[in-house]
Amino acid sequence: MSVMEPAQKPHDRLAYALADDMAAVNHMIRARMASEHAPRIPEVTAHLIEAGGKRLRPMLVLAAARLLGYAGPFHVHLAATVEFIHTATLLHDDVVDESARRRGRPTANLLWDNKSSVLVGDYLFARAFQLMVEPGNLRVLDILANASATIAEGEVLQLTAAQDLATTEAIYLQVVRGKTAALFSAATESGAEIAGGTPAQVKALFDYGDALGIAFQIVDDLLDYGGSAVVIGKNTGDDFRERKLTLPVIKAVAKASPEERAFWVRVIEKGQQSDGDLEHALALMTKHGAMEDARADALDWAAIAQTALKALPDHPLRDMLSDLAAYVVERIN
Amino acid sequence: MSVMEPAQKPHDRLAYALADDMAAVNHMIRARMASEHAPRIPEVTAHLIEAGGKRLRPMLVLAAARLLGYAGPFHVHLAATVEFIHTATLLHDDVVDESARRRGRPTANLLWDNKSSVLVGDYLFARAFQLMVEPGNLRVLDILANASATIAEGEVLQLTAAQDLATTEAIYLQVVRGKTAALFSAATESGAEIAGGTPAQVKALFDYGDALGIAFQIVDDLLDYGGSAVVIGKNTGDDFRERKLTLPVIKAVAKASPEERAFWVRVIEKGQQSDGDLEHALALMTKHGAMEDARADALDWAAIAQTALKALPDHPLRDMLSDLAAYVVERIN
Repeated sequence: MSVMEPAQKPHDRLAYALADDMAAVNHMIRARMASEHAPRIPEVTAHLIEAGGKRLRPMLVLAAARLLGYAGPFHVHLAATVEFIHTATLLHDDVVDESARRRGRPTANLLWDNKSSVLVGDYLFARAFQLMVEPGNLRVLDILANASATIAEGEVLQLTAAQDLATTEAIYLQVVRGKTAALFSAATESGAEIAGGTPAQVKALFDYGDALGIAFQIVDDLLDYGGSAVVIGKNTGDDFRERKLTLPVIKAVAKASPEERAFWVRVIEKGQQSDGDLEHALALMTKHGAMEDARADALDWAAIAQTALKALPDHPLRDMLSDLAAYVVERIN
Repeated sequence: MSVMEPAQKPHDRLAYALADDMAAVNHMIRARMASEHAPRIPEVTAHLIEAGGKRLRPMLVLAAARLLGYAGPFHVHLAATVEFIHTATLLHDDVVDESARRRGRPTANLLWDNKSSVLVGDYLFARAFQLMVEPGNLRVLDILANASATIAEGEVLQLTAAQDLATTEAIYLQVVRGKTAALFSAATESGAEIAGGTPAQVKALFDYGDALGIAFQIVDDLLDYGGSAVVIGKNTGDDFRERKLTLPVIKAVAKASPEERAFWVRVIEKGQQSDGDLEHALALMTKHGAMEDARADALDWAAIAQTALKALPDHPLRDMLSDLAAYVVERIN
């Protein structure tokens, strides 16, 4: 990363500004994913971690800490912590969703087996907890332990809400806060806390992470109906096949005619899907403006994220975080 | 529990002596397994927790703390923590082993699905971490976070060692330390630590838990070839069918004739098992004294556990822990 030139995308600009910190994080991740006794652990972990995710969550920790002037060593531990929690969650998600591809590569559950994904995920959770204990900061531990519980609760809620047409936008928001926004906000909040930020600054960075995470997930759910497999590394229509009630579907169901509702009952609740159903679902979502409405919601959340940043000191990293909030929605185009 | 009369088994005597504490632990477990948003979580958890495990691990925390004179409230949090970690591990184990019965009841993965078991297990891990943070004791956090990593590492090691006839007694011991003894020793060590024990007392209680856990698991592995399904709540021969290299098998393989070795290669490495193979395996283990030798090892570990206790103050709970170490091996008879 350290030889990179400044680039256009806010994410790349953040990576450039935080290059030294990110090198330390990557070094810590490699050191801590090792296992003296069980070589299967680093094999499975490396498959996922070295597939090159965007490292967005660790960068959020680093940016939050640095923009509040942190000069200590522990933001690196917290950044590695959130990446481990994220990786563990992905391993377990792919088992739960029976996914075959992730980040453009076959999933670990496919290359090894579900057992390895479950147990290596557990190992990474435990490693994350070891890492978060090291700074010796109880407030940070609170934040990260609470986020872990919220994430797991959101995943269970998503499981039980799937296939249920009665799922509301409020339930969707709860699921999204759990599965995505909780780790984004824990990243920015714990970064602010380790930097000794004021309560107002810590809250502002929590609010930023929360809103950014929600915008990010809404866009992800939109891309699942519109992105290409090449760009996003997973297959379009996955959520449809898994009968997930994501925001564009919820919006289209809310405006469905009786005939359209029968279609949704068949494909989502009963899971009777055949050729052409995904295309018909897309047509219904377009007809009712569900995609546009969901995109507008994402823009609203991005704006909330940007507003939260105004409580923070003027700093180049603050501007990059603001640009990042706009960018996560621009990904749709 | 509070109306129970003193009984013969050391485990029951411990439960009687710690009845008030255990009531507080059970109350905390019920309160913390709740989920505001996802009712699936308490359903799955209650199925397992209320099936009435022996609550051995939380009792170890309580006994360690009380015998060192602890009078604060936080041993209850730590006892609930280890029970949550244990329960999460069982949920994931049953997915990994594709088990159908646990504690005499159908497993959660059978009653609900693997997805629920994975995600509810994750939730309980996260709840455990929230609980262990509350006492605000960083040494205790170290102990429990490290134990969690050792447990997960042991599980992965067991997975990769399964079906491998080259598994040695040293590897078996590592697996057992991970999957069982790490939580026993973390229970007794964290109980000693929260009570402000001296380093020698903390080490003594760690050593006790470690040796007790190893004896306990060796006996469990023996019972899998000799106990009855009624008594131990799972089916005899499960480990054989899952091709696990447990201590009696390792000992029998070490003494196998070429012909016997071919049998072990077929049933364990190749997994080609048919009627009569379990009985033949039992006959080979008996012929080579593998069951008796493994039982002698368990007795040695129980003696190590009892010796460790001598560094601790004279106390009725100390005597019960000593009796418990003898009892875990007596279970075989």
